[in-house]
Amino acid sequence: MPLPQPDLPEPAHPDVDSMLSRKFGKEVANYFSGSPLNRVSFLRPDHTFLIQALRHPSTTVLLFNNLEPLVQNPHTLATATYDDVKPLIGDHPFCDNEEELIRQYNSEEYVPQIVFLGLDERKGKEGFVYKDHYKGQPWFAVDVTPQRSVKEEAEKLIERMKGKGLDFSKGRMNLSLGAPEAAIYAEARHLLDWNARHPYCAGCGYPTLSINAGFKRTCPPKDMAPSVQHADRPSCATRTGISNLCFPRTDPTVIMAVVSADGQRILLGRQKRWPKYWYSTLAGFLEPAESVEEAVRREVWEESGIHLGRVVIHSTQPWPFPANLMIGAVGQAIPGGEEIHLGHDAELEDAKWFTSEEVREALRVGTSGLGEDAGPEYKEGGLRLPPKTAIAHQLMQAVVNGFASGVTMI
Amino acid sequence: MPLPQPDLPEPAHPDVDSMLSRKFGKEVANYFSGSPLNRVSFLRPDHTFLIQALRHPSTTVLLFNNLEPLVQNPHTLATATYDDVKPLIGDHPFCDNEEELIRQYNSEEYVPQIVFLGLDERKGKEGFVYKDHYKGQPWFAVDVTPQRSVKEEAEKLIERMKGKGLDFSKGRMNLSLGAPEAAIYAEARHLLDWNARHPYCAGCGYPTLSINAGFKRTCPPKDMAPSVQHADRPSCATRTGISNLCFPRTDPTVIMAVVSADGQRILLGRQKRWPKYWYSTLAGFLEPAESVEEAVRREVWEESGIHLGRVVIHSTQPWPFPANLMIGAVGQAIPGGEEIHLGHDAELEDAKWFTSEEVREALRVGTSGLGEDAGPEYKEGGLRLPPKTAIAHQLMQAVVNGFASGVTMI
Ligand SMILES: [Zn+2]
Ligand SMILES: [Zn+2]
Repeated sequence: MPLPQPDLPEPAHPDVDSMLSRKFGKEVANYFSGSPLNRVSFLRPDHTFLIQALRHPSTTVLLFNNLEPLVQNPHTLATATYDDVKPLIGDHPFCDNEEELIRQYNSEEYVPQIVFLGLDERKGKEGFVYKDHYKGQPWFAVDVTPQRSVKEEAEKLIERMKGKGLDFSKGRMNLSLGAPEAAIYAEARHLLDWNARHPYCAGCGYPTLSINAGFKRTCPPKDMAPSVQHADRPSCATRTGISNLCFPRTDPTVIMAVVSADGQRILLGRQKRWPKYWYSTLAGFLEPAESVEEAVRREVWEESGIHLGRVVIHSTQPWPFPANLMIGAVGQAIPGGEEIHLGHDAELEDAKWFTSEEVREALRVGTSGLGEDAGPEYKEGGLRLPPKTAIAHQLMQAVVNGFASGVTMI
Repeated sequence: MPLPQPDLPEPAHPDVDSMLSRKFGKEVANYFSGSPLNRVSFLRPDHTFLIQALRHPSTTVLLFNNLEPLVQNPHTLATATYDDVKPLIGDHPFCDNEEELIRQYNSEEYVPQIVFLGLDERKGKEGFVYKDHYKGQPWFAVDVTPQRSVKEEAEKLIERMKGKGLDFSKGRMNLSLGAPEAAIYAEARHLLDWNARHPYCAGCGYPTLSINAGFKRTCPPKDMAPSVQHADRPSCATRTGISNLCFPRTDPTVIMAVVSADGQRILLGRQKRWPKYWYSTLAGFLEPAESVEEAVRREVWEESGIHLGRVVIHSTQPWPFPANLMIGAVGQAIPGGEEIHLGHDAELEDAKWFTSEEVREALRVGTSGLGEDAGPEYKEGGLRLPPKTAIAHQLMQAVVNGFASGVTMI
């Protein structure tokens, strides 16, 4: 049975009839975007704010075990409270300011990762208020993976949650959250993964310390661990000025609907491991010192041999597996540049031109998640395509709706 | 005396009259994009290709000392040959395949970084040919910083280059290269910086090895250095499957022209360290699990208090200081959301609404590089803006040309 398709998020201000909207059409808010939280990023170094936010009675905590979220069912995240996680994170996280945390750094002390996600301003009135100005329900994420010094406490906590009928999700294919929850989940997963994946400093090789409520890792100049012979560490380039190494990594990727020079056909490709008849748009990582437009042309040529002219960016999608930003574009082949050649790079099993009608019909009857069956109207042998939650789907939809034609979108 | 403004690169196919061009206008190719090189990225693991490319008589090598390129003058890169750098990189770089390189890994051996940049296909006929299909002049970059085991040889090489009247550029403000060279320089600088900035594995803390001609760093399972007691290293998560940690990092940033709800005014901000009367568009880093559209709205609210509705992406720009991708957008304020509040984040000294006429006039008479004087027509007290090479300039130009108005661009 196919999982129900989550609704796509609404644009931030759907009722605004701006000049940009009249000219470029309604904004497409892709799945994993459209978060209801205000991140108030500038408050993250403020430990007084963090203490008060964590302890507020309205505060909501998401729990992750090995990066899998605690859920009520595959469509709804389960939420916990500060009291639920206190046995793990203790009575006084954030009680020290960051200078003090860095001064006391001990690489042998394991502290479960806590991330401050933001304030849900939809619940501002009865909720938490800081400095009269910042209002809303505080959201946090906590890593409850049973390991090192918290192994036992984490196992107990997990048992307590299971006792309530809750469990951790199994694999991302099971995730089919409603749009606002999907965006909150994406933020939490991306940050927890980044912290777990980067325990050491790429500049000097020494262990690093999480600060800024999960949004920064710093390389302390001293390590107070009892087993460390010299507390003073060698100098590290990340301590001189601001270094990008201290901040979370996000990898830009390009994904593109390619239209023919006459605008009548759409190029799609397929990978070997996909189900029969399944195709999608081409995609790949942006390389150092490329514009998005150049990366689109390079990837399309490398994967399919096709030469593109004009490229227009359509919309973007966060993709937290582990850290991607998908930048969706539409590119048009130049006359004479439409011949398919798969021999440069061996990534695709096939690439093929489809007519707009074939794609329009497949968007109507042949879409589903990768592991699911196509819908009831689908006929064997017809084109199959990704679901609405994929930006690839939104790009194809935009093209068949006239995005790339000479017609304006007003 | 102001430096001459470099020409902006031409779009890849300026003569293509595609439907996308008729609908969205000519593509803006920002400074540092528009590279003439085909990166043939899929050939980077092929050491036979790399050996032949490096040794071809047409091969061009860019030299960098502490990330500063060898130049003829501030507007032209100087080029060297394989023979010039042989004393540093030896007779046989790329002679071993990557499996062999990893097997022989010795963390104490210093190898100057070499990066394969691509093939200049404009010089394909008389140049290098590989497998009948890939043609052009090969371009490489080599780090000749005098350090560790190559200190003396590097110093000698630098003296030889200085003997030819060449020298290394001093600081990025001096760089005012022609467009194609600027794009090649950006690629080389981004890759050399990434390799130099990431000598250790963020997953396990051990030193890493450059492979894929400078586009990948791998964490070898053994270290043959004589001083290392146990050649076998602990397991590392980056060795299981494909890890993003092994690939170059590029940090997405958003930069946006903000227009008022009525489309008549443009919001600009200034930082304290800028010259008097100098303003520019707002900008900031994209955060984990944000779409570009959301990042634009968050940054504008955090920095100026203004609430945006629809956001449209305009164009992008590589920015290799050290590793940014600038994503340029236009956003429109919602009615009632135009009041400026600088109190959230302390990044800006001022933010202000300007009329389209003020901005249009300043784009005509008040633009220059940050350290330079405004042009002869500029009158003290008038608005000053960044030069054509900045995407901020291109965004403002697009807005005063009607990008955000209800009018189409056909
Ligand atoms: Zn460090
Ligand atoms: Zn490692």
